[in-house]
Amino acid sequence: MQPIMTIAEVEDLMVEVFPHAARSYRLEELGSMTAKLRMVPTEDNLRPGGSVSGPTLFGLADCAMYYAVLAMIGPEVLAVTTSSSIDFMRKPAAGKDLIADVELLKMGRSLAVGDVKITSEGQDGVVARATLTYSIPPKR
Amino acid sequence: MQPIMTIAEVEDLMVEVFPHAARSYRLEELGSMTAKLRMVPTEDNLRPGGSVSGPTLFGLADCAMYYAVLAMIGPEVLAVTTSSSIDFMRKPAAGKDLIADVELLKMGRSLAVGDVKITSEGQDGVVARATLTYSIPPKR
Amino acid sequence: MQPIMTIAEVEDLMVEVFPHAARSYRLEELGSMTAKLRMVPTEDNLRPGGSVSGPTLFGLADCAMYYAVLAMIGPEVLAVTTSSSIDFMRKPAAGKDLIADVELLKMGRSLAVGDVKITSEGQDGVVARATLTYSIPPKR
Amino acid sequence: MQPIMTIAEVEDLMVEVFPHAARSYRLEELGSMTAKLRMVPTEDNLRPGGSVSGPTLFGLADCAMYYAVLAMIGPEVLAVTTSSSIDFMRKPAAGKDLIADVELLKMGRSLAVGDVKITSEGQDGVVARATLTYSIPPKR
Repeated sequence: MQPIMTIAEVEDLMVEVFPHAARSYRLEELGSMTAKLRMVPTEDNLRPGGSVSGPTLFGLADCAMYYAVLAMIGPEVLAVTTSSSIDFMRKPAAGKDLIADVELLKMGRSLAVGDVKITSEGQDGVVARATLTYSIPPKR
Repeated sequence: MQPIMTIAEVEDLMVEVFPHAARSYRLEELGSMTAKLRMVPTEDNLRPGGSVSGPTLFGLADCAMYYAVLAMIGPEVLAVTTSSSIDFMRKPAAGKDLIADVELLKMGRSLAVGDVKITSEGQDGVVARATLTYSIPPKR
Repeated sequence: MQPIMTIAEVEDLMVEVFPHAARSYRLEELGSMTAKLRMVPTEDNLRPGGSVSGPTLFGLADCAMYYAVLAMIGPEVLAVTTSSSIDFMRKPAAGKDLIADVELLKMGRSLAVGDVKITSEGQDGVVARATLTYSIPPKR
Repeated sequence: MQPIMTIAEVEDLMVEVFPHAARSYRLEELGSMTAKLRMVPTEDNLRPGGSVSGPTLFGLADCAMYYAVLAMIGPEVLAVTTSSSIDFMRKPAAGKDLIADVELLKMGRSLAVGDVKITSEGQDGVVARATLTYSIPPKR
């Protein structure tokens, strides 16, 4: 399944409906059931010990999945996360961008399921992996 | 297992080591393997459609668990989340506080596991439930 | 929400549609959004080291949720698990029954979400906890 | 990281320590942080509606991860699952073998984390995906 929106169309949509996300993330690639999102962590994203916080990584994974789903089905902005599991495995490198790679495993009419792997630029190994399920509102 | 820190001690610790959390959350209760955290959502916490965003709810659950673990074992601020699963079940009421109730299921030397239920003040039913595992650094 | 089937009705249904489960589990209690299922582990349920295997505990949690959902909505036997997370926390006592306590958190028209805590008879602490989501087929 | 046991060594070990698994599964491939396990479902593995049951799929994912971890670190048979999340996405084709592909994401001294994708032979799309964390006992 190929995306039906371009990178620019998805980004313009986010500026309009989700400016908080548009400021934090940059959509870099869209492919067949895949997407790549980039984030530059700031001071606000750190937790005690100086590592990127869990909610920051969860937010990146969740938005990466949101961008990927919308790119595939069009601007169904009311698609919402219904469940997720996430594993935090490595501390990301300090001061480096975070990259989220989405692989959609199922794109049904009412549910989408995808895996997201987050890496730290220039560092081997996965920082965090998440699986997310989105519920897609019925067509009116 | 009873907490070994008081509510005031935990909150003072957060002001010092995690000011971002201290500004967002208020610790309301500590009991035997339990804790209750309150949050007032702001505009920044909303997602398209006007509901509280998933990362906001995840962040509340994650911090509630962090507060609970530290209250039980003392100021081990480098305790970190290793994994979590979360289910989003109901839209919270607009403009209402969110309440996170933690129940610690295991408080081992190296791992803590807990359930968190998030409710919306004055509304029946659970908004979100999460399970979190924290890794506790070894004593030096 | 109260069950609309009795314990005997649920057990008779299982003998008919899911004899494998009927042989392994005994439904002991049904309440408002709750159920309790009992299992006597056998040699086949053990893993290396002599502990009860993970799939045995997962199977008990999954069936306990299935029994609970059917008790609430009637014999919708095609209700299926769509996702689950499970944490294994303690080794169950050898030769003791396992008890699964279900708490349904959401009983919607198309989705049910519930928590299951598994304990080992006569032993403190939770052996395993699981959260399960069931998809309920639409009424014909 | 390459496996330090061969397929035959892992299978011989299972015959000895986990005969129930040895009868159910066949290890087909081992690679760098990867493994592939095959299963032929039987009548006992079906649930109401004739599909393969959730606990059967969970058991396959859990054992596939167990085989993969042991292949990488040697016969540490007391490695145990500490947590897992699983999503069931498609009904497997009737009467077809199930294939579990493991990708280890982290192989630490005390914890291993891996993703498992289960497919149904000759059918497109993932039947189920699971993430599992194993705890590895300390060297004596």
